[in-house]
Amino acid sequence: MEQYSRKMKVKVLDIESGKLISLLNEIDAKELGILPLERVQITNPKTGHKINTVADKTDTVVEENEIGLFEDVARLLEVKDGATVEVQASDKPKSVQFIKKKMNKGKLKESEIKEIVEDLSSNKLSEVEATAFVSAVYINGFELDEIISMTKALVENGNTLVLDVSPVLDKHSIGGTNGRSTMIIVPIIASAGYYIPKTSSRSITSSAGTADAMEVLAPVTLSMEKIKQVVEQTGGCIVWGGAVNLAPADDKIIKIEHPLSLDPEGQVIASVMAKKVSVGSKHVVIDIPIGPDVKIKTKERAEEMALKFLEVGKKFGINVEVMLTNGAEPSGSAFGPALEARHVMEILEGKHFDNLAKKSCELAGALLEMSGSTEPGKGHDKAKEILESGTALEKMREIIKAQGGKIFSSSAVKMAPFMKEIKSRANGRIYKINVRHCITIARIAGAPGDKKAGLLLKVKDGTKVKPEQPLFEIYAENKRKLELAEQFARSVDVIELDKTILQRIS
Amino acid sequence: MEQYSRKMKVKVLDIESGKLISLLNEIDAKELGILPLERVQITNPKTGHKINTVADKTDTVVEENEIGLFEDVARLLEVKDGATVEVQASDKPKSVQFIKKKMNKGKLKESEIKEIVEDLSSNKLSEVEATAFVSAVYINGFELDEIISMTKALVENGNTLVLDVSPVLDKHSIGGTNGRSTMIIVPIIASAGYYIPKTSSRSITSSAGTADAMEVLAPVTLSMEKIKQVVEQTGGCIVWGGAVNLAPADDKIIKIEHPLSLDPEGQVIASVMAKKVSVGSKHVVIDIPIGPDVKIKTKERAEEMALKFLEVGKKFGINVEVMLTNGAEPSGSAFGPALEARHVMEILEGKHFDNLAKKSCELAGALLEMSGSTEPGKGHDKAKEILESGTALEKMREIIKAQGGKIFSSSAVKMAPFMKEIKSRANGRIYKINVRHCITIARIAGAPGDKKAGLLLKVKDGTKVKPEQPLFEIYAENKRKLELAEQFARSVDVIELDKTILQRIS
Repeated sequence: MEQYSRKMKVKVLDIESGKLISLLNEIDAKELGILPLERVQITNPKTGHKINTVADKTDTVVEENEIGLFEDVARLLEVKDGATVEVQASDKPKSVQFIKKKMNKGKLKESEIKEIVEDLSSNKLSEVEATAFVSAVYINGFELDEIISMTKALVENGNTLVLDVSPVLDKHSIGGTNGRSTMIIVPIIASAGYYIPKTSSRSITSSAGTADAMEVLAPVTLSMEKIKQVVEQTGGCIVWGGAVNLAPADDKIIKIEHPLSLDPEGQVIASVMAKKVSVGSKHVVIDIPIGPDVKIKTKERAEEMALKFLEVGKKFGINVEVMLTNGAEPSGSAFGPALEARHVMEILEGKHFDNLAKKSCELAGALLEMSGSTEPGKGHDKAKEILESGTALEKMREIIKAQGGKIFSSSAVKMAPFMKEIKSRANGRIYKINVRHCITIARIAGAPGDKKAGLLLKVKDGTKVKPEQPLFEIYAENKRKLELAEQFARSVDVIELDKTILQRIS
Repeated sequence: MEQYSRKMKVKVLDIESGKLISLLNEIDAKELGILPLERVQITNPKTGHKINTVADKTDTVVEENEIGLFEDVARLLEVKDGATVEVQASDKPKSVQFIKKKMNKGKLKESEIKEIVEDLSSNKLSEVEATAFVSAVYINGFELDEIISMTKALVENGNTLVLDVSPVLDKHSIGGTNGRSTMIIVPIIASAGYYIPKTSSRSITSSAGTADAMEVLAPVTLSMEKIKQVVEQTGGCIVWGGAVNLAPADDKIIKIEHPLSLDPEGQVIASVMAKKVSVGSKHVVIDIPIGPDVKIKTKERAEEMALKFLEVGKKFGINVEVMLTNGAEPSGSAFGPALEARHVMEILEGKHFDNLAKKSCELAGALLEMSGSTEPGKGHDKAKEILESGTALEKMREIIKAQGGKIFSSSAVKMAPFMKEIKSRANGRIYKINVRHCITIARIAGAPGDKKAGLLLKVKDGTKVKPEQPLFEIYAENKRKLELAEQFARSVDVIELDKTILQRIS
């Protein structure tokens, strides 16, 4: 239905809000019939370009007959300060009714999910509406059909990577903690002659994401063209997914999930699979760590999720295998971007073959088996062979170079200047290393923002320790952060010793 | 746990956001370890006053070592542009975990609901968190205990009205459409010697709220002291509830519910009952209109809701009765603040006794019976007697005067200058008047923002009409709004004529 409209003068506000918001004077809002959180449609009369924004009200920032636009909105509309625009009340996007349907426990059709994803991608939904959607999906869940529709919609509303080479292999870990298996798997797979264009995230709640750790060695914010070039040349890449807009709607959903620590299973599956479809993957291995401190706590939940991954994969012609892995103990001894990157380089250089290296070879091995490169059961050994031969290290150096990086060895990775060693106060055998505490200490010390900050374990499960034996080191960019991290470390049990041994009188 | 903190320079931004938000430069956010939608605690070192804000990031508005504060935040913290503050990462409020509990279908304890309401009242929850709470309550519902806890928490976190007179009676309608029965009931009850301090809302989705209509006659934004004085002097008042902060958390919840058209039953009951407790009500009548165009569509749903109202009333020592009323037809012929106010004054002046007048006498009568003023079954007649005697009109004039108003009769209420009469194009008997269309037309014409705009029905259900007979009038403040309202009116069936009659050949 047609709406009453008004000519108004633009006042550009020097803020980038990232949201489609405009500011109206209380009097104009009343006259146009705009209530809190309702929308106005703003038209640039010179171009006919229209944009819908949520209208906030003010009686200080804009005068009567003025409309306040944040810089990003003014840019989208191609208007400058002082320009005249047409303003009118505007209806909610149609997708709001589909969000309501999901809140009412309804099952969403493909077209409805598509509409929601489009509106999320183009910023048409307000924060309230987007949050209601995420909450409804978390509470009421998605059926398999809906996961498939969501995957499809995310792919259609994002960029895709079209490689002139094949086959494309990929891996994904669901909510692990530390240890960057990706940085070991990618060079192994690329060494075996396959293509693995890996996009990774930055850390949200941990001490480093794969993108943060890789960034210690090489730039990870690459354009789609550059990624294509790197992968076609070297076979692999390890880049930050946030830079290439594979699924912009998903980025918005994750931004809402994080403060509430939500992980709606259906959304997680769609989000992962959409990214695999977008880069043209043929064989994908999904790693689901299970443990008390990781996202998935029980084997039952992991199995249920695994079956859905297989189903969705089938729908999109992707060969998926899921590996349930042990998330109860830390993957490697490093927490923090530089420490984790150095640890990975040490593994590639053949300096350790620890549980992170083993897990990486298992996952890479599964991919090699799936692609037919090796016989079933021989994948791990083949991957280990590639790793131990030094071929994977050479490949990693090629990838670092192709991405524009300059750090090619573990010894070239520098740590933060302030370090504190935490020592054992008793005799005993290590009974449990608390991964969450390790992460918290690394974060207080400054990781992942300070790339060279973090925590390095000097012991592992089962190790016998004596008083004054170093348990772990904390690295920080300044004294204050180091002190705070140390204070926290001393206030909790980061490392628990076996109790029976502690009781013994010596 | 203690956090790394930094001294930063305040940059005050000339915007009132109504939300606790600060702006950090990307570099500082990284150094402090702040992720999107996370919080910082800002301390004014001169006063020790601390405030938690959600930190938005920018790389244009504030420089490194600067923190951007919206005007309202700067005022709360008592700092000026250029002041130095301490800034550190801050944890989420504890209530976020209770919101999560409700999302996970848990039942909330009294202390948990209290914490959520406190954090909502003091703006500590972000829009995402508050929306997740409202969505969870909508989807998972509240048990009776939780409704009672919510009612209590809302009362404890709002202002209360303490009158030196008694007993206090009150009424509330759940989601009706037009017709301001409150403006008839209040003077009747006050005339009978009782006290009725009525707080009403402004319109959200209809053509006028009671506060909007009353404002045509008298100011409705009164302080608590003024309300006390008006009620103790005259026995009644009709004021805008939003001005007195009876339940600030509820105002925030309603602001979120509106764009999604959510009405979580438990929340609605708690919201209504909290306001009744806050003004010290002893006898309360709740009017639940039932019909296709109002909030409650079925008798079953209304009955279920009614029982909960009675239970919550019992818990707070309030005598509650619920009246299920006919919401299928319009309450009176007026849509829009001035038209509805004029219609009410006409009823008080004895010019009509229509269905709005009858309904008002039924509701007022129930209150008179509950308070023991009349015998059961005699309430309606007693109320009608007070209305017809002119006592209620005199009382209304006293209340208008006490609130500071100057409009004392229907003839003093002025309409908007542009009017269009819509006429019947056929012979027939009125079969259905579409209330939603009437409201939409009144809103396009400018109501409730333009107080004198709206729609006035000239016919009612069952009326026989001839071609060219006036069906309704539209009033608007300017030609354009009138034209748009007329266009819409002509594009829909506002008034349906009886079909059999339309088929007759004349």
